[in-house]
Amino acid sequence: MKRRTWLRTLHRPLAVLGGAILAMAAISAAAAQEPTTEENVADLLAALDTTWLLVAGFLVFFMQAGFAMLTGGFVRSKNTANILMKNMIDACVGGLLFWAVGYGIAYGASDSANGFIGWGDFFYDTYEGFAGWFFQFAFAAAAATIVAGCLAERLKFSAYLAYTVVITGFIYPVVVHWAWDVNGWMSAFNEDPFLASGYIDFAGSGVVHMVGGWAGVVGAALLGPRLGKFGPGKQVNAIPGHNIGIATLGMFILWFGWYGFNPGSTLALTGGGAALAAKVAVNTTLSAAAGGVAAVIYSKILTTRYDPGLTINGILAGLVGITAPCATVDPWAAVVIGAVASAVMYGAVLLLDVVRIDDPVGAFPVHGAAGLWGVIAVGLFSSEGGLEQAGYSDPSKYGLLLGGGFDQLAAQLVGAAAIIGWVVVTAFILFTAIKYTIGLRVPQEEEEKGLDLLEHGLDSYPDFGPTGPGVFSPGA
Amino acid sequence: MKRRTWLRTLHRPLAVLGGAILAMAAISAAAAQEPTTEENVADLLAALDTTWLLVAGFLVFFMQAGFAMLTGGFVRSKNTANILMKNMIDACVGGLLFWAVGYGIAYGASDSANGFIGWGDFFYDTYEGFAGWFFQFAFAAAAATIVAGCLAERLKFSAYLAYTVVITGFIYPVVVHWAWDVNGWMSAFNEDPFLASGYIDFAGSGVVHMVGGWAGVVGAALLGPRLGKFGPGKQVNAIPGHNIGIATLGMFILWFGWYGFNPGSTLALTGGGAALAAKVAVNTTLSAAAGGVAAVIYSKILTTRYDPGLTINGILAGLVGITAPCATVDPWAAVVIGAVASAVMYGAVLLLDVVRIDDPVGAFPVHGAAGLWGVIAVGLFSSEGGLEQAGYSDPSKYGLLLGGGFDQLAAQLVGAAAIIGWVVVTAFILFTAIKYTIGLRVPQEEEEKGLDLLEHGLDSYPDFGPTGPGVFSPGA
Amino acid sequence: MKRRTWLRTLHRPLAVLGGAILAMAAISAAAAQEPTTEENVADLLAALDTTWLLVAGFLVFFMQAGFAMLTGGFVRSKNTANILMKNMIDACVGGLLFWAVGYGIAYGASDSANGFIGWGDFFYDTYEGFAGWFFQFAFAAAAATIVAGCLAERLKFSAYLAYTVVITGFIYPVVVHWAWDVNGWMSAFNEDPFLASGYIDFAGSGVVHMVGGWAGVVGAALLGPRLGKFGPGKQVNAIPGHNIGIATLGMFILWFGWYGFNPGSTLALTGGGAALAAKVAVNTTLSAAAGGVAAVIYSKILTTRYDPGLTINGILAGLVGITAPCATVDPWAAVVIGAVASAVMYGAVLLLDVVRIDDPVGAFPVHGAAGLWGVIAVGLFSSEGGLEQAGYSDPSKYGLLLGGGFDQLAAQLVGAAAIIGWVVVTAFILFTAIKYTIGLRVPQEEEEKGLDLLEHGLDSYPDFGPTGPGVFSPGA
Repeated sequence: MKRRTWLRTLHRPLAVLGGAILAMAAISAAAAQEPTTEENVADLLAALDTTWLLVAGFLVFFMQAGFAMLTGGFVRSKNTANILMKNMIDACVGGLLFWAVGYGIAYGASDSANGFIGWGDFFYDTYEGFAGWFFQFAFAAAAATIVAGCLAERLKFSAYLAYTVVITGFIYPVVVHWAWDVNGWMSAFNEDPFLASGYIDFAGSGVVHMVGGWAGVVGAALLGPRLGKFGPGKQVNAIPGHNIGIATLGMFILWFGWYGFNPGSTLALTGGGAALAAKVAVNTTLSAAAGGVAAVIYSKILTTRYDPGLTINGILAGLVGITAPCATVDPWAAVVIGAVASAVMYGAVLLLDVVRIDDPVGAFPVHGAAGLWGVIAVGLFSSEGGLEQAGYSDPSKYGLLLGGGFDQLAAQLVGAAAIIGWVVVTAFILFTAIKYTIGLRVPQEEEEKGLDLLEHGLDSYPDFGPTGPGVFSPGA
Repeated sequence: MKRRTWLRTLHRPLAVLGGAILAMAAISAAAAQEPTTEENVADLLAALDTTWLLVAGFLVFFMQAGFAMLTGGFVRSKNTANILMKNMIDACVGGLLFWAVGYGIAYGASDSANGFIGWGDFFYDTYEGFAGWFFQFAFAAAAATIVAGCLAERLKFSAYLAYTVVITGFIYPVVVHWAWDVNGWMSAFNEDPFLASGYIDFAGSGVVHMVGGWAGVVGAALLGPRLGKFGPGKQVNAIPGHNIGIATLGMFILWFGWYGFNPGSTLALTGGGAALAAKVAVNTTLSAAAGGVAAVIYSKILTTRYDPGLTINGILAGLVGITAPCATVDPWAAVVIGAVASAVMYGAVLLLDVVRIDDPVGAFPVHGAAGLWGVIAVGLFSSEGGLEQAGYSDPSKYGLLLGGGFDQLAAQLVGAAAIIGWVVVTAFILFTAIKYTIGLRVPQEEEEKGLDLLEHGLDSYPDFGPTGPGVFSPGA
Repeated sequence: MKRRTWLRTLHRPLAVLGGAILAMAAISAAAAQEPTTEENVADLLAALDTTWLLVAGFLVFFMQAGFAMLTGGFVRSKNTANILMKNMIDACVGGLLFWAVGYGIAYGASDSANGFIGWGDFFYDTYEGFAGWFFQFAFAAAAATIVAGCLAERLKFSAYLAYTVVITGFIYPVVVHWAWDVNGWMSAFNEDPFLASGYIDFAGSGVVHMVGGWAGVVGAALLGPRLGKFGPGKQVNAIPGHNIGIATLGMFILWFGWYGFNPGSTLALTGGGAALAAKVAVNTTLSAAAGGVAAVIYSKILTTRYDPGLTINGILAGLVGITAPCATVDPWAAVVIGAVASAVMYGAVLLLDVVRIDDPVGAFPVHGAAGLWGVIAVGLFSSEGGLEQAGYSDPSKYGLLLGGGFDQLAAQLVGAAAIIGWVVVTAFILFTAIKYTIGLRVPQEEEEKGLDLLEHGLDSYPDFGPTGPGVFSPGA
């Protein structure tokens, strides 16, 4: 009875909402039965924690806008709409597939579930769990979106549709199950000593970013570089992105969204969660800042210029790097982790040029390489107090560089190797299968004219830009 | 006494804020009088619900940026500043007018108020109700902003100023009063059986989106199409928007803001509000996702291309469609509602071409048509459990397609007809009055040169774009 | 024991999170020791207030994206990347420096601290205070970022790096200490009558915006105007910004972020903080709205056009103006304050032309001039009830225009004079020192070609824009 009436009460004229809401609730409850203080406290505890998952999830979802602007700005104007479409569809396919299948593979707890794969809760419809689903969906969408950057400016749209379904619906959720489900074989929360590897990945440097980055680089290798990217011998040609303004906006939106990604991964505010979230926010800030400043220094030294593109990716590498260790390290370590993440990112950019893999937006250096660094950093920098603050049960396994021994580092290396192995093998099978069925790559003529015109029927900037006004119109 | 000292206490060095805040509060309170557990719980209940209205309202407000980027990207570059100005002024005029007049018409509860119109609380100044006012203001600004899209690229700015005042200050608030005020004649919360129609519109598919969309289409019909939009016979010319990048950004900002619009419409987190907000967030996500995927499929079938503009509007149609039923339907129904909303949007686009009404950004298809679908969907898909979860008092009136009979559907059809009737008649009078006084349309020469130069004295892209550098400068 | 286990519990399959979280907490707690109702309430009070600082801080941080888009849009396309770089680096340097030094100067409470400067807490690492640090960091980053706008399009990047370190690490934190630390000599919260001046600056019209604006204008005067800005005699040439679209986006992001800036400055939600935050949100909205509408009217009267750039800056001036008085004035006064702030901004624009100081984005008129107005407005418009609602201890010192006498106004004038004096003197020394060491200004040839190419090695729009495709490539 109470349940049915609370909303009616709340829809009373909002003029009296503020303080009066309580009085009204009391009146309405009196008609039914006044909630006791204990009931109110239980209500408050549940409401606060549920809301945290929602608000943090909103921020993580908004990262989709960040990825869209970042990658949109880093490609050429003739392929802008194409990469934007992929971002939009990643959010949509992510929503539908993670609802139908993905969540059930990640967290499904039926009798068929085991340490390797979850099973159950398909077509998710559990009223009490919706906030948790929503938070996890936002992460899934992020993982899928990372891949598109590696494959930009030359992948067929139909091939994109094929791979994104498999990654969102299967490859990614399996990793989530391993690391974050309480029954996952490598989860630090698995109490079964035979299975648990003690892998700690608080917000997903490995689970989310490595999955996206490593799947993407496998795809990029199979897809081959863009026309003109690599010349004869060791020649590498820069292909500048068309709009640094929206790329910068994308970076800031991602940074903003990361405050949902990392602090939100406390999953609760009560029981000490809020104070932990605050520490996580500070570490996230410091690592991003160190990553950005370090990239400016590196680029000034190596190129004599203050490079905006590297600065953007340096900040993002700092964010990716701190994502796993954000809850268990102290602020000074966050600064170190960010600066090293930026160097790892830069090194990976140079390495990709050597092995002649073309990653137009630097998604592998940022997510794949700095993500691996983040996973490792947990084993190097986690402090005894930090592990305790974050609620891990064995604070004796602290970081190697703090004198904590090799135990945690070993767990991290096993976890990272497992994720890389799983993703590389499944992504190789996936992209190879697409290559020999749908085909991966657009025809050369389409690549030259740009994917926007032929795949999507539009010029992203019809009033100016290379094609100029009037060259192409989608017609009536 | 306590009241005066709490802030002083909080301004103490923030170093000691976290855990210590409580201790300090205790100390300061001891000097006055320590709050009892019951007082603290009452404080917490009020604080949490107030904060929800604020945070959700912030997100809804941010939709103004989304509308600005969406419509700014969908028009030609020569009219960009003009539509941006309308977005900015809608937020400003919305704030001032909804404060002075609009809220009082929507929720004013003086003796002069009745089922048709509220009265009282003008120049709003009730300390306890500020959070409620703020949340409602953000909705009002959204309703006003929708209209501008239908009238883009040819409306005089002075005519714009005239209509936006009337819509924000009168046409929209009356509909709010009907549907959401407890005394409104068609409100599901009106306990008077003679008046109540039992219309359910949880977050405003009808109250907000239909008002904007139907007012806009009436204006567009009276204003006439842009030069060159319709050729002889049945010829329809596409006039491509100038910047798909910022339009995509606008869509993502709107989707992000919708997580304030729909979940925020629980109006509270306590008493079960948080769990309901979570369900609403899930349904909102799934409907948007289904709308986007459906639009990709429709556009591929009908045009052989994956159309970014239709994808954007398909996602938005999914969001508009789920806005009324988001609290009362189950997730599978949200998927269906979104896919159908996308089709309804697409059908309305084709219909407008047939009747030769020019809506440059598709505001009527998205808000007017998909909004109508959303209102109807409540009567088709609301589940018995869903109605109970959302606090509606009569869960026996569930959806027709679930075997619940025609009762709720009838209430929805009456409500929708009333809103359309009210908006079409008042908007017709309004735009006709403006046409014969201020005039609606800019001169042909101005339309050709673009509204930016002559109304606003600037080129939106002076460094590139059609006019090129140096063609026009606003002077000293 | 409880502490170590709560996170483990929460990582259980999220399917059961919602309502079940409580049950699980109970189970896990029972194993340890069930928290009492009193303990739960203490937990909730601390969690809610901590979370408010975090969420508000996220919004304030996002203002960095707003500043980037605003200033990026207001400069020419050849200097876009340069100003974006400054925004990115301000956020990064702000994070590192405010962590290492700034916070300690602002709030450090060691024995070496006094009314003029704080000392202690360097390299901040206090678990209980992280939320407070994070909130303050976001403010510091905003203050630093304001300066860059005044100096746009002609400042050497190395000179930028030098000044931003000093402002973030020293000049700004000292002012924070004066006004907001409980020991600050002019703080309204300082209980020592000899020191306290009773200066009220709720969210920082003076502490944040005046510091940025006045430091910037001193720098701009020493730097000299851009080439071609001022002609012979009294000639002033408009140099239009290159992208009004992203500038508008920047304004909306800033407005959105201001809902963290002003309402967040309650620093708490409990103890009446939420209701006060709601009032602050309403006042912030009304002042911004009035500033925007007023700017449209002023620009129409003075230039016969509806000027988008002035509208943007009018809204921002309204936001800056209400930042100090937002908690202590009534809504009608917020409307007046915003309209006057807009006029003050416009007057300052005209004044800068007279004294031939070139401020490309209007940062001094918006932040320096309207910030001063905001500080003064506290002494004119604060109401007796408003001061009491905001927790100030002496509500008898209300606004002059409400009959409250000169006391509060005097305190505001002393505070404003002190801030201006401190900032002008230190900024003069700082920029003069840079001028005669590193040098402030880029060579004339670089200024003509644009700072992007030579400082940063890129064209911000290589696919279109003045340089056109292929003119410059950063090479391999």
